[in-house]
Amino acid sequence: MILLLKPNADSRQVDSVKAWLRGQGVEPREVIGSEATIIGLIGDTSRIDVELLQSLDVIESVKRIQEPYKSANRKFHPDDTIVTIGEVKVGGGGFTIIAGPCSVESEAQVTDIAWRVKSGGADMLRGGAFKPRTSPYAFQGLRETGIDYLLHAKAETGLPVVTEIMDINHLDLYEHVDVIQVGARNMQNFELLKELGATRKPILLKRGLANTVDELLMSAEYVLAGGNAQVILCERGIRTFETQTRNTLDLSAVPVLREKTHLPVIVDPSHAVGVARWVPALSMAAAAVGADGLIVEVHNDPPHALCDGAQSLTPEVFCALADRLRQMHALGAAPTAHPRRREGALRALATLN
Amino acid sequence: MILLLKPNADSRQVDSVKAWLRGQGVEPREVIGSEATIIGLIGDTSRIDVELLQSLDVIESVKRIQEPYKSANRKFHPDDTIVTIGEVKVGGGGFTIIAGPCSVESEAQVTDIAWRVKSGGADMLRGGAFKPRTSPYAFQGLRETGIDYLLHAKAETGLPVVTEIMDINHLDLYEHVDVIQVGARNMQNFELLKELGATRKPILLKRGLANTVDELLMSAEYVLAGGNAQVILCERGIRTFETQTRNTLDLSAVPVLREKTHLPVIVDPSHAVGVARWVPALSMAAAAVGADGLIVEVHNDPPHALCDGAQSLTPEVFCALADRLRQMHALGAAPTAHPRRREGALRALATLN
Amino acid sequence: MILLLKPNADSRQVDSVKAWLRGQGVEPREVIGSEATIIGLIGDTSRIDVELLQSLDVIESVKRIQEPYKSANRKFHPDDTIVTIGEVKVGGGGFTIIAGPCSVESEAQVTDIAWRVKSGGADMLRGGAFKPRTSPYAFQGLRETGIDYLLHAKAETGLPVVTEIMDINHLDLYEHVDVIQVGARNMQNFELLKELGATRKPILLKRGLANTVDELLMSAEYVLAGGNAQVILCERGIRTFETQTRNTLDLSAVPVLREKTHLPVIVDPSHAVGVARWVPALSMAAAAVGADGLIVEVHNDPPHALCDGAQSLTPEVFCALADRLRQMHALGAAPTAHPRRREGALRALATLN
Amino acid sequence: MILLLKPNADSRQVDSVKAWLRGQGVEPREVIGSEATIIGLIGDTSRIDVELLQSLDVIESVKRIQEPYKSANRKFHPDDTIVTIGEVKVGGGGFTIIAGPCSVESEAQVTDIAWRVKSGGADMLRGGAFKPRTSPYAFQGLRETGIDYLLHAKAETGLPVVTEIMDINHLDLYEHVDVIQVGARNMQNFELLKELGATRKPILLKRGLANTVDELLMSAEYVLAGGNAQVILCERGIRTFETQTRNTLDLSAVPVLREKTHLPVIVDPSHAVGVARWVPALSMAAAAVGADGLIVEVHNDPPHALCDGAQSLTPEVFCALADRLRQMHALGAAPTAHPRRREGALRALATLN
Repeated sequence: MILLLKPNADSRQVDSVKAWLRGQGVEPREVIGSEATIIGLIGDTSRIDVELLQSLDVIESVKRIQEPYKSANRKFHPDDTIVTIGEVKVGGGGFTIIAGPCSVESEAQVTDIAWRVKSGGADMLRGGAFKPRTSPYAFQGLRETGIDYLLHAKAETGLPVVTEIMDINHLDLYEHVDVIQVGARNMQNFELLKELGATRKPILLKRGLANTVDELLMSAEYVLAGGNAQVILCERGIRTFETQTRNTLDLSAVPVLREKTHLPVIVDPSHAVGVARWVPALSMAAAAVGADGLIVEVHNDPPHALCDGAQSLTPEVFCALADRLRQMHALGAAPTAHPRRREGALRALATLN
Repeated sequence: MILLLKPNADSRQVDSVKAWLRGQGVEPREVIGSEATIIGLIGDTSRIDVELLQSLDVIESVKRIQEPYKSANRKFHPDDTIVTIGEVKVGGGGFTIIAGPCSVESEAQVTDIAWRVKSGGADMLRGGAFKPRTSPYAFQGLRETGIDYLLHAKAETGLPVVTEIMDINHLDLYEHVDVIQVGARNMQNFELLKELGATRKPILLKRGLANTVDELLMSAEYVLAGGNAQVILCERGIRTFETQTRNTLDLSAVPVLREKTHLPVIVDPSHAVGVARWVPALSMAAAAVGADGLIVEVHNDPPHALCDGAQSLTPEVFCALADRLRQMHALGAAPTAHPRRREGALRALATLN
Repeated sequence: MILLLKPNADSRQVDSVKAWLRGQGVEPREVIGSEATIIGLIGDTSRIDVELLQSLDVIESVKRIQEPYKSANRKFHPDDTIVTIGEVKVGGGGFTIIAGPCSVESEAQVTDIAWRVKSGGADMLRGGAFKPRTSPYAFQGLRETGIDYLLHAKAETGLPVVTEIMDINHLDLYEHVDVIQVGARNMQNFELLKELGATRKPILLKRGLANTVDELLMSAEYVLAGGNAQVILCERGIRTFETQTRNTLDLSAVPVLREKTHLPVIVDPSHAVGVARWVPALSMAAAAVGADGLIVEVHNDPPHALCDGAQSLTPEVFCALADRLRQMHALGAAPTAHPRRREGALRALATLN
Repeated sequence: MILLLKPNADSRQVDSVKAWLRGQGVEPREVIGSEATIIGLIGDTSRIDVELLQSLDVIESVKRIQEPYKSANRKFHPDDTIVTIGEVKVGGGGFTIIAGPCSVESEAQVTDIAWRVKSGGADMLRGGAFKPRTSPYAFQGLRETGIDYLLHAKAETGLPVVTEIMDINHLDLYEHVDVIQVGARNMQNFELLKELGATRKPILLKRGLANTVDELLMSAEYVLAGGNAQVILCERGIRTFETQTRNTLDLSAVPVLREKTHLPVIVDPSHAVGVARWVPALSMAAAAVGADGLIVEVHNDPPHALCDGAQSLTPEVFCALADRLRQMHALGAAPTAHPRRREGALRALATLN
């Protein structure tokens, strides 16, 4: 971390800042130039509060060199984290496909879809039991019953299940759930993240609609700091001025995240675009860009289902797509395609902080 | 609500949609034109799930005429809601000033600031006890102890207190807190909103960084739907590409909200701009634009405080500002300044839904 | 187009609006419901000014059914437009690669890069002669001389050339340029677009940093309306709050545009992300998502070049990438991957306007 | 400017960078720390190309201390610029009001509005002759004739006139126009800015919909660098995800700009919000926040005008508003309201670059 001092900084105040920094376990090194004085900090700066420093009268600006996340940082953990759920692996070179309905509607519905997506090659089943809805008058999900139905589908098909948590008080209901999802709207529900850090469940952490890549990593850090190393990151679209799609899928986040963190990164094109007929194209782009997997909505039998989901694929489209996605991923993951990845690993050995 | 059907919509499917709509308590009226067929819905459409309708094969698009919020809607409640906290009123024509430190640091600090802002004319004291922080390594607030200190300052000065809740499990700690704040990051923590709807505490609901005015009103509706009518809305900046200010304060939201809802609307310029020296100008703009009040950060004695807050005013600046703010508000609130407000009230009597 | 009237709309004013609409060549059909009165417009509404209608006292809101672009609209031109430049085709199923330096620096530099990208399989050469720069003190390009150098490289290698125009007064210099680029900052320079519509040069039209897909199509319409049918659209990143990448590449725009327009759509990942090591991954995503081509920055010999371009690939990386891109595109373009494209074509036959 | 070198930067490359920097007229001072090596640049860095430096292999990051604009920078020109148009002054402590119709429609219309806004206290007349329209089929303005009508209204009423230029080839038409407006869509039409820098006409430069405050200042710098010192900046709303208002008026930009530049700053609330009934509230906020003036749309006699402009005030509302705006501005401009302005001026004397 580099602190640029103000031109006429009071020297007693500067001394007081340096003393405080030493108390935080970092060593300040002052460099006096003709134009400006700089203090470089040596040591672990991840616990230094940048906003606090920036607010001091003697400081013009603060520049981080070391990222503020440590457990999630590839620099300190060069090898890919592989999250293992039974026989399913997320991360480490494969392409994991999670599919299922937006909402769990009935035992028959979710079990039927589970069989169909399994036949198409899905690795895990997704389905919403607790549903975050903008309106208090909209369907809020089947809640406990929805989780029971999901677990029934798991028992029948053997597919591990992923479902969202909205309140830490519901945690007991997730005992047999394989992966707990934290939705975009809860990405910065820090109390929830802390509690999930205390569990040993794999966590699927979705990026918030207005959150940066760095903030996503800081939220992952909350879970990791609690001792839970099983975190899967998910890009699901950010909010922009464009209105044709519900959100703007930020696929650039995938190579950025793969460089910055060892955690696996998957993509949710269904929620991002919100229109089923554009989902296959974006799923393929997700595979090509180097994501570790996909989470996609699939519903059954739309003509008879009222809630058929504008953003959901039919099982037929999903099955035709899944195989192609893995080919696409294999082509994208070959060495020359990402020519700097090795260099990224080498850079991870550098000691700059 | 108006449904535009697709050109070749299957008539049996259309019949099935109409039957479902009647089951939802609204009457569909079909209008067949040469270019398109339209179904107009008569009755209370606030519980109709627009996304579900949009996802149906037979429907081209859906247009709401009636807003999806009912309890928060000025159309159905033309008179301003006044939230009353002891002798303090928020809404109804005055300009309420809430001031205090970003974080509660000690009993002496918060009590001292409380006396100072009271002398400057503040109506309520704010102070963070539970602090939402992007980094798990940053100071998370004094938590329970912070609330004790705030309540001590309240007992000393008589100022009602506002402080943020981050987890419904902490609710018992807020028994003597006057106004419970829901932070921007929890604006769509729907489970929390539901629980707060079951209390009878005034709620200060901050707009999320990437949330629309309509979504803010839907989140208020969660609290109102639970039977808690005491909701104060707060504009605190949205996320844009501009980097000079931390966020972009959206003051247009004030007249928009005043037209759409009867709930009081206050402005938080401190978090929005993040730089103390720009806060007075934006505070005055908030008073001029017709807000019902302001929530602003004030700290004491910056040279000796390490956490003096880049975004906090000194007590001296605050005191010089507060009086002027009320003059500004009075000038802005005079009748010709908002010439259509009366018309807005008249329009509220219209029966269009 | 559907006009929703206000509840108490003055009937004489409504009559006057209807008369005006007939004068514009469309037939208004009034539909009186119990809740609201609607006027449906029959005929070609592309010339109707929506903002003007929305501003009228009697009108609550206006909803377009027919898009405001006609020449660019796939509904009226179901077949893909293929822009032909000598032996190179853009659109119609292939994947066209345009590569070259950000700025033309010397005859030797651009010719050397031209040979190298040609050997890697590039179809066209790009290079900036007139450079739009945020600062008046930054290098503004070699201007006329830069175009001469580009044309020299074209003469040597046979590669057609693409370069940006910044002022219609420079048009004469572009006589032997094959494709004229309109940059993101000029996407809504309507006077320039009109003049280019009067030429018969292929135009590469880049999406503005804050422009919607519909606005991009309206700008294309300016060129098409002038009689120039040779327009290539280019997605190059939009401005969001994310700061890791220079802009956010909106790959969703590709399937959206392919559905809405018959014009070819290419992607510029170099300007979007601004960091060379992330360009290959996003290039592959562009191929997978169904784009018709790529425009990418390639520089030579970075150790000896001062302006080696943070966003430029080396020729070696480019050559390794180009072949793979075409495989990726072939895999993405296969029929089941975009299962609704055929349906899109069928829909194009529908008469709804 | 501070350059942070990469940990293992090749020393010959570093030497080559230092030689190049000296050639650019700045002196590099190297500071070798244990963690990182820094090069501080002494001298005028406004002509140094930051992107070029950032692209170099040996450089980790570049931090500007000195802003890249010099002529527009308050640091080098502490006193407010006052743009003088006849007897009207913009900047320097007053509040200048510019009013008039969105489009010039007829000689009678613009002259009538001119008389009415003059009676309400407007200082200048605005009116669009060349209109930038998203659609090529929408009304493009009366063009030459529109300017003639404006000049007629000027001759009648004595009000100076402001109107937009869209193409430098039209410059001759603006001989008697008092202030030439550059619209938001042309803010980065750098060739146009250069040409206007060569004139001696006052320029009203509007901020682009997706442009930062710094970019606005760089565009002003283009005009100033050409020798034209008469530039008025205008905030007119930026593009965000919010849809209730057409754009989001960024009033924070006013205090930011007042600190960074000596140029006057006015606000256009009409285009920003796009809804007339919200314009008065935002006009007052603009006056309170410390803007130097307002540009606002006023139309006459809406019942008989078809193009009455959703965003335009009636003359009656304008007249009631104008007087109040000046009171508001006087209250906002008083010294304690902007307590740090003096400090800003002092800071301008600091030598840090």
